[in-house]
Amino acid sequence: MYEVGIVGATGYTGVELLRLLAGHPEVNVSVITSRSEQGQRVDALYPNLRGHYDLQFVSPDVQLLSRCDLVFFATPHGVSMHMMRELLAAGTRVVDLSADFRLRDAELWSRWYGQAHACPELLADAVYGMPELQRDQIAVAQLVAAPGCYPTAIQLGLLPLLEQGLVDTRHLIANAASGASGAGRQAKVDNLLAEISDSFKAYAVAGHRHLPEIEQTLGNIAKSQVNVTFVPHLLPMIRGIHATLYARLSTQQSVDLQTLYEQRYADEAFVDVLPAGSHPQTRTVKGSNMCRLAVFNPQNSDTVVVLSVIDNLVKGAAGQAVQCMNIMLGQTETNGLNGIALTP
Amino acid sequence: MYEVGIVGATGYTGVELLRLLAGHPEVNVSVITSRSEQGQRVDALYPNLRGHYDLQFVSPDVQLLSRCDLVFFATPHGVSMHMMRELLAAGTRVVDLSADFRLRDAELWSRWYGQAHACPELLADAVYGMPELQRDQIAVAQLVAAPGCYPTAIQLGLLPLLEQGLVDTRHLIANAASGASGAGRQAKVDNLLAEISDSFKAYAVAGHRHLPEIEQTLGNIAKSQVNVTFVPHLLPMIRGIHATLYARLSTQQSVDLQTLYEQRYADEAFVDVLPAGSHPQTRTVKGSNMCRLAVFNPQNSDTVVVLSVIDNLVKGAAGQAVQCMNIMLGQTETNGLNGIALTP
Amino acid sequence: MYEVGIVGATGYTGVELLRLLAGHPEVNVSVITSRSEQGQRVDALYPNLRGHYDLQFVSPDVQLLSRCDLVFFATPHGVSMHMMRELLAAGTRVVDLSADFRLRDAELWSRWYGQAHACPELLADAVYGMPELQRDQIAVAQLVAAPGCYPTAIQLGLLPLLEQGLVDTRHLIANAASGASGAGRQAKVDNLLAEISDSFKAYAVAGHRHLPEIEQTLGNIAKSQVNVTFVPHLLPMIRGIHATLYARLSTQQSVDLQTLYEQRYADEAFVDVLPAGSHPQTRTVKGSNMCRLAVFNPQNSDTVVVLSVIDNLVKGAAGQAVQCMNIMLGQTETNGLNGIALTP
Amino acid sequence: MYEVGIVGATGYTGVELLRLLAGHPEVNVSVITSRSEQGQRVDALYPNLRGHYDLQFVSPDVQLLSRCDLVFFATPHGVSMHMMRELLAAGTRVVDLSADFRLRDAELWSRWYGQAHACPELLADAVYGMPELQRDQIAVAQLVAAPGCYPTAIQLGLLPLLEQGLVDTRHLIANAASGASGAGRQAKVDNLLAEISDSFKAYAVAGHRHLPEIEQTLGNIAKSQVNVTFVPHLLPMIRGIHATLYARLSTQQSVDLQTLYEQRYADEAFVDVLPAGSHPQTRTVKGSNMCRLAVFNPQNSDTVVVLSVIDNLVKGAAGQAVQCMNIMLGQTETNGLNGIALTP
Repeated sequence: MYEVGIVGATGYTGVELLRLLAGHPEVNVSVITSRSEQGQRVDALYPNLRGHYDLQFVSPDVQLLSRCDLVFFATPHGVSMHMMRELLAAGTRVVDLSADFRLRDAELWSRWYGQAHACPELLADAVYGMPELQRDQIAVAQLVAAPGCYPTAIQLGLLPLLEQGLVDTRHLIANAASGASGAGRQAKVDNLLAEISDSFKAYAVAGHRHLPEIEQTLGNIAKSQVNVTFVPHLLPMIRGIHATLYARLSTQQSVDLQTLYEQRYADEAFVDVLPAGSHPQTRTVKGSNMCRLAVFNPQNSDTVVVLSVIDNLVKGAAGQAVQCMNIMLGQTETNGLNGIALTP
Repeated sequence: MYEVGIVGATGYTGVELLRLLAGHPEVNVSVITSRSEQGQRVDALYPNLRGHYDLQFVSPDVQLLSRCDLVFFATPHGVSMHMMRELLAAGTRVVDLSADFRLRDAELWSRWYGQAHACPELLADAVYGMPELQRDQIAVAQLVAAPGCYPTAIQLGLLPLLEQGLVDTRHLIANAASGASGAGRQAKVDNLLAEISDSFKAYAVAGHRHLPEIEQTLGNIAKSQVNVTFVPHLLPMIRGIHATLYARLSTQQSVDLQTLYEQRYADEAFVDVLPAGSHPQTRTVKGSNMCRLAVFNPQNSDTVVVLSVIDNLVKGAAGQAVQCMNIMLGQTETNGLNGIALTP
Repeated sequence: MYEVGIVGATGYTGVELLRLLAGHPEVNVSVITSRSEQGQRVDALYPNLRGHYDLQFVSPDVQLLSRCDLVFFATPHGVSMHMMRELLAAGTRVVDLSADFRLRDAELWSRWYGQAHACPELLADAVYGMPELQRDQIAVAQLVAAPGCYPTAIQLGLLPLLEQGLVDTRHLIANAASGASGAGRQAKVDNLLAEISDSFKAYAVAGHRHLPEIEQTLGNIAKSQVNVTFVPHLLPMIRGIHATLYARLSTQQSVDLQTLYEQRYADEAFVDVLPAGSHPQTRTVKGSNMCRLAVFNPQNSDTVVVLSVIDNLVKGAAGQAVQCMNIMLGQTETNGLNGIALTP
Repeated sequence: MYEVGIVGATGYTGVELLRLLAGHPEVNVSVITSRSEQGQRVDALYPNLRGHYDLQFVSPDVQLLSRCDLVFFATPHGVSMHMMRELLAAGTRVVDLSADFRLRDAELWSRWYGQAHACPELLADAVYGMPELQRDQIAVAQLVAAPGCYPTAIQLGLLPLLEQGLVDTRHLIANAASGASGAGRQAKVDNLLAEISDSFKAYAVAGHRHLPEIEQTLGNIAKSQVNVTFVPHLLPMIRGIHATLYARLSTQQSVDLQTLYEQRYADEAFVDVLPAGSHPQTRTVKGSNMCRLAVFNPQNSDTVVVLSVIDNLVKGAAGQAVQCMNIMLGQTETNGLNGIALTP
């Protein structure tokens, strides 16, 4: 059994990690930290865990954490970068679910996150945790930066088109919608049920923090500059991201998009290309690590439409982090991730 | 007082007409028809109307209806076209909320609706009921075809750009999402709460019946061919349409989009251009006849993003129909439509 | 036109007052106060009010407020009692939507609200604002304490049984459920959509602050001591209270409950006794000032079941306050309250 | 591996059985039947199962089913009783999730279900599948009738009080609320999202089919006649049952209710008595086989309040059926049922 720790386990990605790891055959969660809930039992905060964990929150302490084989950071941005140097120096491996090590460019990070980066020298070695793109690098990484929720849905949706150089990369459109759990477990008026239930809105149209991450990853895939118009929306529900992606074909040749997608993801356990003509629903991935995709070419125009759904807390956060951990520890990649989506 | 009738008053647009007309100072609903509910009191079917109406459903009968000053059709497509010739011949004025008279081209109609059009000769005289576009024609029309819900939100959002010829009309993108009431009050598994609550999906990506209507109207505005990639989505809530519209600027000159929109709609009672940087929420129009708009130019790219929200049952159906009626009858355009959206 | 002011207009009951009063023919809102939002336009906070109000929040000031004909307090408990003495002394009439003047007994108030009452000497003159119980006293009152949301639904449901002395008053059961807007517009984790959507729970079973108010009012009606087991629940939706009331018949005689209820409320504009066998839905009162009731005697046992629904923000708060205001000002009682519930 | 079949696998309890059994270490689903969907792949109907099952629906055929070690009926009432005689004669063991074999009295069954019972002679041998009550009888049964969803939540909540004879059994009150999945996957207007979302109502107050089952079971436990006033309600959400139970203490002695409940269920894997003062939320059991309970004695009155939550599709249907199967097959009782509830 591997021993793992979770920093910031009081949030939604933290409790989701606990849910998934409870069913993992080779991993034991031995440390969970929270500054605010120190001393409290985790199952008092999350009664769904009663009977599954006998743990209480402790103060985040690098000494303690470094005894783990692997540590997850399920913290807001700006936290992990202050502990990372010491933790890596101690030889601990890390999967960081926060944004701190996703961007290569410390300058860019600092512009979008409004603070200086605390350890820019580690950015070059951090591996972006998207298994479908760079499984081998994840396997040997000490520090894996797990992708954001929107980026995961969008990047998996556009990857085959960009790898094949089929579309105009300067005018990509990513119209996406997320359930409210994406905003985390923070006491904000904007996230009250009475404010956002029974309603729908776009937000951050002028610029959302996931945009530079998306453009960086897609740029790496396309090997050229990529510009994305990214419009996130807030859904009146808890879990799920749905991305509707628009790209203009830059080739005159006819392309069999369905086959392209099916072949690209044929060996991926967690990417499911639906039969032609299907429309993925977020409920078909609720609680599961799946990304389901569909690709259309409506009215035979030169505009391709890709639909991509994930559970933002699973494939968009905790599930993908566990998938990365499995790869890092040489485990079967699906360990702990076999759960079927809750439908209805 | 004017006497009006409603054909097909058992559906959601029907009951919404009744709700709005109960507060109209100059109009009295004297006939409501329904083949299936004949003989039943309307407030037995819709208890929210108790105390406001003392009406029961009667069988649809042209004789009876033709005694009204104006008749609304709140029927599924394929119904009104079979009664229209006779009703118009009797001199009755009509606002048809169904799709039967929205398209100019009977051939096109028949392709999208899967049946021949029963009175193609009336299509040329039917006036498309979008007051912001052709108020004067509505005023004198005998037959007004009220726009669909998606088309209303999308067309109001794109109109200023197209009128001014600022964007590439061959590659417009209309990404829209609707509450479940848009599917009507039909017993279908697909619309059960247990199927669509707590989930989100696109549908009809290959082609939705509102597409030809949108392209026809936008083409009239742009005075050129228009191609739209239209992707509708289903929201886990009852009322509201949110359209996120993408257009590429075809001009090199800098355009003050905010001012353009504010000026275009300065005199419109039911189109509200929000302050720059705002994001409209569907709940700010719930139950009201408002369309609220915002316009963005994210990252200073050449892509314009317009956000447009309406209540699909009000500005997208019953409210717009009442607005048309007011214009036709020479009433104050806002009569019966002063209700404020229910927030929260 | 009467001039009215609203103290604490940033909350949900405040915005609901503004929505209702916008349609009132004889009243003009001239002052809205908020300590936190001072200087901000009300329609910036609540865009549904755009075009209906040209007001901004000012600091709460008794001088200013005393120029109004009537002032509403839409504040949390513990606020109005600190301004009341001065305001009443200035001759202003007040409808207080908060809990400060609902209980007769300052001692009891202080036990449930955890603080001393700031002006216990006013409690005796405050009139409890339940028009169906004491319309005449409201008409001449200077200070009306509008009932709580749960108490309104429960008291209207039990009133006919208690007035007639038909049931055991020591073992009444009030099982009630409220939408999340009842908790107000406060930034609390417990009220996030991600916490309470798609879930249901009871809360405060050991004792809820509305219990003493309920027992006080029911005791007055029954003219004897009343004990209620009151269990509130939280619904995954915004508006609506549903009370399911259980009482044991203390008489052997057969009672025609349906007729009893219909007769008791025959002259009440805002209490609607449904036909026998009906089940009221909260959506039939959403946004309206109605209370809809049904009464059952299942399996011919000695247990009576009463169902009672209101919109917690309307008949449970702002609507009832306007109804009281109408009575106090000698207006038609239904002024501003004719809106039909939004269904669907 | 045991081979099992599912009759009626197109409904919500059917797909939930498939979800749970996919994770069961000793069971293989080899036959799924559906008259209407014959020939269709199950993962076309339920895409959440993609990759987990390679099965298509076949016509229900006793020959085929009798080759299974055990067959589940996930059918509406009135179906299983027509196949049961033949299936049992073939030696197959059965867990029937429908209502056909829950009542002992064929006469009573026929009165509540509006048809004659097709094989009344089997009723005496059918074992009611409530493991917490009669685990040993389930172990050796050939036919187990799995309890209804409401009865499960209510009976587990009242069992300790009735076993100890502590309360008045003639005046029990079961106020319960269910998510919409309890109504099944049927095309009915009453279950549309647009009808029941954002609303709440009681239904079937005059008499619900689960009442005789509840009174039969509670009567067996209490060894005396039991009368229950049972009021079901419909929640605007998909999964979950919450029962709020009221009973009057018939003893003068003080009773330590918390200890009573904890001891009674100490050895039960799927009944969790929460710490004193807690309020169970349905989301803490969503997707899991848990029943969580809390017991209160508010205001020290003689009225006991018990709160009980389950997932209606799991502990209220498919999960309990798998639990019964495990007992019948001599498996570890928790096999396939270790999943943690999805929170948030």
